[in-house]
Amino acid sequence: MARRSSADMEKTRQILLEQGILLLQESGYNATGIQEIATSAQIPKGSFYNYFSSKEDFAAAVIRYYASKSLAEWLGFLKEAAANDDPRQVLYSSFLAATEKYRCVTLKKGCLLGTLAAEISEVSEVCRFALQESISEFKTVLSEQLLLGQQTGAVRKDIEAQRLADFIWDSWQGSLLRMKVIKSVDPVQENLEIVFNNLLKP
Amino acid sequence: MARRSSADMEKTRQILLEQGILLLQESGYNATGIQEIATSAQIPKGSFYNYFSSKEDFAAAVIRYYASKSLAEWLGFLKEAAANDDPRQVLYSSFLAATEKYRCVTLKKGCLLGTLAAEISEVSEVCRFALQESISEFKTVLSEQLLLGQQTGAVRKDIEAQRLADFIWDSWQGSLLRMKVIKSVDPVQENLEIVFNNLLKP
Repeated sequence: MARRSSADMEKTRQILLEQGILLLQESGYNATGIQEIATSAQIPKGSFYNYFSSKEDFAAAVIRYYASKSLAEWLGFLKEAAANDDPRQVLYSSFLAATEKYRCVTLKKGCLLGTLAAEISEVSEVCRFALQESISEFKTVLSEQLLLGQQTGAVRKDIEAQRLADFIWDSWQGSLLRMKVIKSVDPVQENLEIVFNNLLKP
Repeated sequence: MARRSSADMEKTRQILLEQGILLLQESGYNATGIQEIATSAQIPKGSFYNYFSSKEDFAAAVIRYYASKSLAEWLGFLKEAAANDDPRQVLYSSFLAATEKYRCVTLKKGCLLGTLAAEISEVSEVCRFALQESISEFKTVLSEQLLLGQQTGAVRKDIEAQRLADFIWDSWQGSLLRMKVIKSVDPVQENLEIVFNNLLKP
């Protein structure tokens, strides 16, 4: 059989990662097997190991892939909202835009980073580090925006931007959890309203 | 074989529920099988059905059992803290006490309700309702304490107690998720500090 081109390899790797997002969101890490991952990408089980050395290695790659896609999407929302002069409103709008994608879907999957944080942190150190790094990337952007808000007077200054970023990330993730439980985006919107219209106000 | 007494049955049911907490916290819902549940309680697989009609029925019972145990524990913390006159400080102390149990364990399992919310909400309606009801019970107590705080002037009045309770529950759960990712109780403590010393202040 002819050796597969690197473009073909890259395409299959991409399909595996995309299918990985769906499988990990649907069944979680423990209940997803390599056979199932391979089947979903229409490759033989043995070929899986041409791409990833183990399920753990695969899951860590899915985490990083999902995080970089989501971060790019959120940076897009931030850019769109930047016409507004108030950095607090810019951030608020970007979070509301990120919430919109959950509104019209029946299955409210929430954020894969939060879903896996609940399950994977005790099972795999490799995945835990991938989660930790991915979450840090989001919080770096969040913290920069908050600092900008503090400099322009739009955001309270008595709590450091980094601590506010931690708090906002956590409460956002918590509200996404409750969104899944009650099958409604209301918890997320109410959370954002309290954060941006009350907590962050100077 | 002699018919087992109802006291024996009750004892085995209790063991199944306790083991269920451990198994669901460790492997999640999807990856835990009835055989494993039965083995952990040292009963034959067939006997499992004398207690629960299905894995789903079992998981919903574990959720309710875990929630009622945790709620009783938290009510104890609230009672201990009630010597303090300030209802905001009473609540703060009760949450700090609830955090203490995570400090000295290496495996920071977090709250089973949050862990399962991430995984189970799309898989089982029966479990989703059990989670929803269990979370509501906590929030009813939380809301009553916040209302008391609002009446005595210890808690801000411009956001309704029920909305504050929703917000506190969500951000607490989010901070427990990050505790799992970074293996430290710091996120939980920092979250509580911002909630009780900043957001809730009148």
